[in-house]
Amino acid sequence: MNKPTLGIIGGVGPMATAYFMELVIDKTPAKADQDNLPMIVFNDPQIPDRTDFILGRSDKNPVPEMVKVARWLERAGADYIAIPCNTAHFFYDEICAAVRIPVLNIMRETTALLAGAGVSGGTVGLMATEGTVHSGVFQSYLAEDDISVMVPDADDQAIVTSLIYDQVKQNKPYDVDAFLAVASRLRDRGADAVIVGCTELSVIYQDLREKPDYFVDSLDALAQRCVDYYFEHRA
Amino acid sequence: MNKPTLGIIGGVGPMATAYFMELVIDKTPAKADQDNLPMIVFNDPQIPDRTDFILGRSDKNPVPEMVKVARWLERAGADYIAIPCNTAHFFYDEICAAVRIPVLNIMRETTALLAGAGVSGGTVGLMATEGTVHSGVFQSYLAEDDISVMVPDADDQAIVTSLIYDQVKQNKPYDVDAFLAVASRLRDRGADAVIVGCTELSVIYQDLREKPDYFVDSLDALAQRCVDYYFEHRA
Repeated sequence: MNKPTLGIIGGVGPMATAYFMELVIDKTPAKADQDNLPMIVFNDPQIPDRTDFILGRSDKNPVPEMVKVARWLERAGADYIAIPCNTAHFFYDEICAAVRIPVLNIMRETTALLAGAGVSGGTVGLMATEGTVHSGVFQSYLAEDDISVMVPDADDQAIVTSLIYDQVKQNKPYDVDAFLAVASRLRDRGADAVIVGCTELSVIYQDLREKPDYFVDSLDALAQRCVDYYFEHRA
Repeated sequence: MNKPTLGIIGGVGPMATAYFMELVIDKTPAKADQDNLPMIVFNDPQIPDRTDFILGRSDKNPVPEMVKVARWLERAGADYIAIPCNTAHFFYDEICAAVRIPVLNIMRETTALLAGAGVSGGTVGLMATEGTVHSGVFQSYLAEDDISVMVPDADDQAIVTSLIYDQVKQNKPYDVDAFLAVASRLRDRGADAVIVGCTELSVIYQDLREKPDYFVDSLDALAQRCVDYYFEHRA
């Protein structure tokens, strides 16, 4: 097998996983099939909802199943792991501790992209699950780079939650205008940039015909890091 | 793990594999992540080009690597296998013989869809790789249902080959007008339907804003069969 092989903890959610693979492929300078990254993907529908557990709405802890998949990927030959789900990164340290191979961090990659774009000292809007917003994990990474975070008000967060859970996760048509309107209101309140901080929202964002330049997509940041990692470590 | 688990021999090509996953997910009646099909995907860039071997332009036989991936998927827990590559089905019997679990057949699923749509006794146009066109495997499946096959002329086959190898497999913008024009000329020559018979062409077809109703997409047919198989065999 070509090395290093990317292992993907997939299915959180499933469509975001497929979009993530597309982004990785699209960012790979390939002249033929054979130039692409080797990937092992485990789309596991048995990982419980991350937000429900973080907010105490369910006692089904997603960590044991995610750890199982991470270890399975390691045994299967993966050399590094990506998890195309922001909310899951609340449990990042526990997943890292379970395997010997590196686990890339979608929130750190997004933060690095913002810092690189000169947003340090500024304010970003965060569109994400309630789990991600309330856990404060993204905020703590961003604070390390002196970036302040603004979250949607309660009505707008309800719109974001519905886009994620009632639309993308159910394979229903999604309301692009509502997505853009929430971002626009964060901008009006003073956000220098808006983080697409949930991989279901990335599905909507990636399908936009025209992408406003103030968005920073977490799924895109993670995909770029996976490709860079491959070429940096290629055996 | 939920059963049955779908194993995918991926990377032939990579973008087609991601689109295939999207189609499977989109066809699954899911209310939440947890309702989706379990999938193990091995995106293997080391599978040699199928067409080059079939046409004798290369002595790199893709069978040993595809057999390796099929057996790997079986050991990893897959209960049935899909190969989102039409050209690879030239080697279908050899792959089937290497594993105990069923391997779905993209050409048979496409043929069944056409027969079900009442095309039996008629003529279909086939847009596919040179390997698929020259091997005659698709033609033999279609003949069983009394369906005649019309292939593009040499100039149009060159256009199809370029769409597959110079555009989709290289992640370059693809020429939608050229894709539609080849199909249209097959229609003018009397094709009742046109088979999208290469999964790279399915990438182009799936991205069409408006899909002419005379197309039958092989990738779509295989994805539907995977979802149906899951619900028929769910444990």
